[in-house]
Amino acid sequence: MKKYLAEFIGTFVLVFLGTGTAVVLGGYTGGTDTGYLGVLAIALAFGLSIVAAAYAIGHVSGCHVNPAVSLAVWMSGNLTTKELGGYVGAQVAGSFAGSSFLAFIVSSSVTLEGFGANGYGEMSAVGLDLSGALAVEIVLTFIFVLAILGVTSSKATSHMGGLVIGLTLTLVHLIGIPLTGTSVNPARSLAPAIFAGGDAIVQVWVFIVAPLIGAALAAVVFKSLFYVKEETGIEVAGASQNTPNVK
Amino acid sequence: MKKYLAEFIGTFVLVFLGTGTAVVLGGYTGGTDTGYLGVLAIALAFGLSIVAAAYAIGHVSGCHVNPAVSLAVWMSGNLTTKELGGYVGAQVAGSFAGSSFLAFIVSSSVTLEGFGANGYGEMSAVGLDLSGALAVEIVLTFIFVLAILGVTSSKATSHMGGLVIGLTLTLVHLIGIPLTGTSVNPARSLAPAIFAGGDAIVQVWVFIVAPLIGAALAAVVFKSLFYVKEETGIEVAGASQNTPNVK
Amino acid sequence: MKKYLAEFIGTFVLVFLGTGTAVVLGGYTGGTDTGYLGVLAIALAFGLSIVAAAYAIGHVSGCHVNPAVSLAVWMSGNLTTKELGGYVGAQVAGSFAGSSFLAFIVSSSVTLEGFGANGYGEMSAVGLDLSGALAVEIVLTFIFVLAILGVTSSKATSHMGGLVIGLTLTLVHLIGIPLTGTSVNPARSLAPAIFAGGDAIVQVWVFIVAPLIGAALAAVVFKSLFYVKEETGIEVAGASQNTPNVK
Amino acid sequence: MKKYLAEFIGTFVLVFLGTGTAVVLGGYTGGTDTGYLGVLAIALAFGLSIVAAAYAIGHVSGCHVNPAVSLAVWMSGNLTTKELGGYVGAQVAGSFAGSSFLAFIVSSSVTLEGFGANGYGEMSAVGLDLSGALAVEIVLTFIFVLAILGVTSSKATSHMGGLVIGLTLTLVHLIGIPLTGTSVNPARSLAPAIFAGGDAIVQVWVFIVAPLIGAALAAVVFKSLFYVKEETGIEVAGASQNTPNVK
Repeated sequence: MKKYLAEFIGTFVLVFLGTGTAVVLGGYTGGTDTGYLGVLAIALAFGLSIVAAAYAIGHVSGCHVNPAVSLAVWMSGNLTTKELGGYVGAQVAGSFAGSSFLAFIVSSSVTLEGFGANGYGEMSAVGLDLSGALAVEIVLTFIFVLAILGVTSSKATSHMGGLVIGLTLTLVHLIGIPLTGTSVNPARSLAPAIFAGGDAIVQVWVFIVAPLIGAALAAVVFKSLFYVKEETGIEVAGASQNTPNVK
Repeated sequence: MKKYLAEFIGTFVLVFLGTGTAVVLGGYTGGTDTGYLGVLAIALAFGLSIVAAAYAIGHVSGCHVNPAVSLAVWMSGNLTTKELGGYVGAQVAGSFAGSSFLAFIVSSSVTLEGFGANGYGEMSAVGLDLSGALAVEIVLTFIFVLAILGVTSSKATSHMGGLVIGLTLTLVHLIGIPLTGTSVNPARSLAPAIFAGGDAIVQVWVFIVAPLIGAALAAVVFKSLFYVKEETGIEVAGASQNTPNVK
Repeated sequence: MKKYLAEFIGTFVLVFLGTGTAVVLGGYTGGTDTGYLGVLAIALAFGLSIVAAAYAIGHVSGCHVNPAVSLAVWMSGNLTTKELGGYVGAQVAGSFAGSSFLAFIVSSSVTLEGFGANGYGEMSAVGLDLSGALAVEIVLTFIFVLAILGVTSSKATSHMGGLVIGLTLTLVHLIGIPLTGTSVNPARSLAPAIFAGGDAIVQVWVFIVAPLIGAALAAVVFKSLFYVKEETGIEVAGASQNTPNVK
Repeated sequence: MKKYLAEFIGTFVLVFLGTGTAVVLGGYTGGTDTGYLGVLAIALAFGLSIVAAAYAIGHVSGCHVNPAVSLAVWMSGNLTTKELGGYVGAQVAGSFAGSSFLAFIVSSSVTLEGFGANGYGEMSAVGLDLSGALAVEIVLTFIFVLAILGVTSSKATSHMGGLVIGLTLTLVHLIGIPLTGTSVNPARSLAPAIFAGGDAIVQVWVFIVAPLIGAALAAVVFKSLFYVKEETGIEVAGASQNTPNVK
């Protein structure tokens, strides 16, 4: 059960600090500063949430905090089907806890606009359409998960996994925020959509389906093409990231 | 005594460079640029202060530079009660030295507004109320200290501790600056409040009590749920961070 | 063939996320925010693309994603002439794929101005002339490739290669974006120039020739002056970066 | 001789990319954007210059690229007096090469204002006076050099030295740019002052003397209080940073 609690806390950290920074800074600046800097600060908040969570709870659960990542790890054979269910449940619960705490903290002082929900069309800062949103979320998740599988597949780099994965999440937010707000994570998208309501709920399926497709593609490509056994003869792909140390 | 001097210097670095960057950049821009970038630059100044101090004096004292961190380490059994007193005393002294030096440097050229003191209500950029301030400081400190305990509990990642802890401090500032100015550290809050005077003194108890509660919660959660013995059989949780090498 | 596919994907990541962030943020802000922050966010997007790609596919191909880097590695004797051809071909194909995907994603929502193409004269934000553009691209590529050869030449630092190389690419963009848009990579420049058309095509030779000269100079200087054999007696310069693990 | 060439190249990188980013971004934005972001981008340019140079030439010369650092290393007994002279000479020559190349690149397109020279009084963005400038440069250099000596004194962290030292240089620039422009490095200050002329030449002694004092204080404090022998019994303080591998 400890690993599920870890996933709950990690996803809470990601959603509260990631979407929370977007909401609080948006309220702070009155929504007038919608330029480059908002993107940069929010992209860093999401990425550094992963850095913090990975080194806080990564040794317990692998710090997936993302159903798309858990799917890729399950496809790689490093998570049982039962564990997959537990992980996803804990991640969704953590997401709702993060959005709830955000609402509790800031509802009296900041106008909550969208809770950091993702969207396309009129909910996209640049008006990206549905097909564009699907394509960009699939590709960004593919890149994100490929980096996760790569950095965690070797003992030489796995201790840097949290840093590299966090910086990669920052990267995909730099381009993705004006497009869709960047999901690449169904759990991160679900609770903010429910709290925001309206079109956010109607559109949220995109940010559940597309990340899962992107992650599955990354798992297939990595396993079939880029996976390299370490010289010890032990298959270690994703070991440090994926194999829970605590049952 | 060397470890207390190290804590004094480390806390001086944090308070002078963290609150100092807030004060100097605020004076530089005439207070007109209160948007995203102020948050980002100041958040980085606090975080990078920890990076610098951790690798400068971490091998001597563990670089707590924060009574809340020392409390968590004491609860983990890696600091004696006598050491706890010495650490906290050195941290508070370092904080006053940092604010004093800041006043000496900039009083003739920059209007000192608040010395980087924390606050709620009218002292919060977004008008966060007392209960919100208590809640956010408890949660942000919980996250910060959980990351500290996690990254320092394994030999595989402890050499990255300073970097990870610094980036986590940057993270909690990204959302916290518009809310409370971000404390998560009683020593960091005390001297600026005394120097700023007025409401800052009245409110400073929040930024002493809440971080201590958050850190204590993190110590309990980590020790009871997330602590993993290394294969050597030696309990190493927090060893590199917490155990002073120099008496 | 796997290593060529890895180079294709890596260069796709660099061009889509690097030039894509420039295009999308430019569209997002209506081109009015042309100051420091655009430079910083775009510089980070290019640099973090290398961080992501290096840890995703570096163990397969070395993650050159740049014909100038492959040239330097070939001059160092760590790539066969046949491999050099395959690498460059894959990189150019990846660049066209990146620009094509960018066009598909954003053409309906963002005005594409220049596709992130490099340029001098009227295409330079500060009006840098041809000789200045040649000189700056040669020197920036020399610095970039020297850092690559240095960090990958020792086992003690090679696991940090992706991070260091990415941050160095961010560095050369901070000064280079207002000057030429920063190439230091013929593949990164070629596809955006073709897509942008006009003067971008006329000028693109500068961003092919100058990076190759800079990289060749770095390879000569490093091999003749700065190369140090590791104590194992095995020549390892660039081993982790340059020697493909997968044939 | 190779180590002197390495110091020449490293200091060239620091001065060209550090002061160059300040000059080019200042020209790019017409000097109107003098707020937080200029500070952040320029602070990152200086810091990442050290990251790039440290991993490019650190294994050859230790990458001091700063007479104040060489002084501290000489005081620690890890540099001969003859080497100290050679290092400082190479650093000063590299600084002039950096400013010269900057002038060549941008003189036709960007108005050169001050070449990134340091200053106080009317040359300080906030009007910092002489005593303040002396104090801040001594303290910032003390912090910077203490971090250098700390991170390079242990095998466990020395491979991270370039990253930590670079981020520390970014840190001291965040507060220092509005105060003095941040020197902490006599070589970095000398050439820009000569190229800028006028008051910059009159004031440059401050940015030679103060960093040397701060570095000397750091060397004394570190050696007498914070130095810890590694368990091997071999004195390694500063070994990786300070001991040239190539004669």
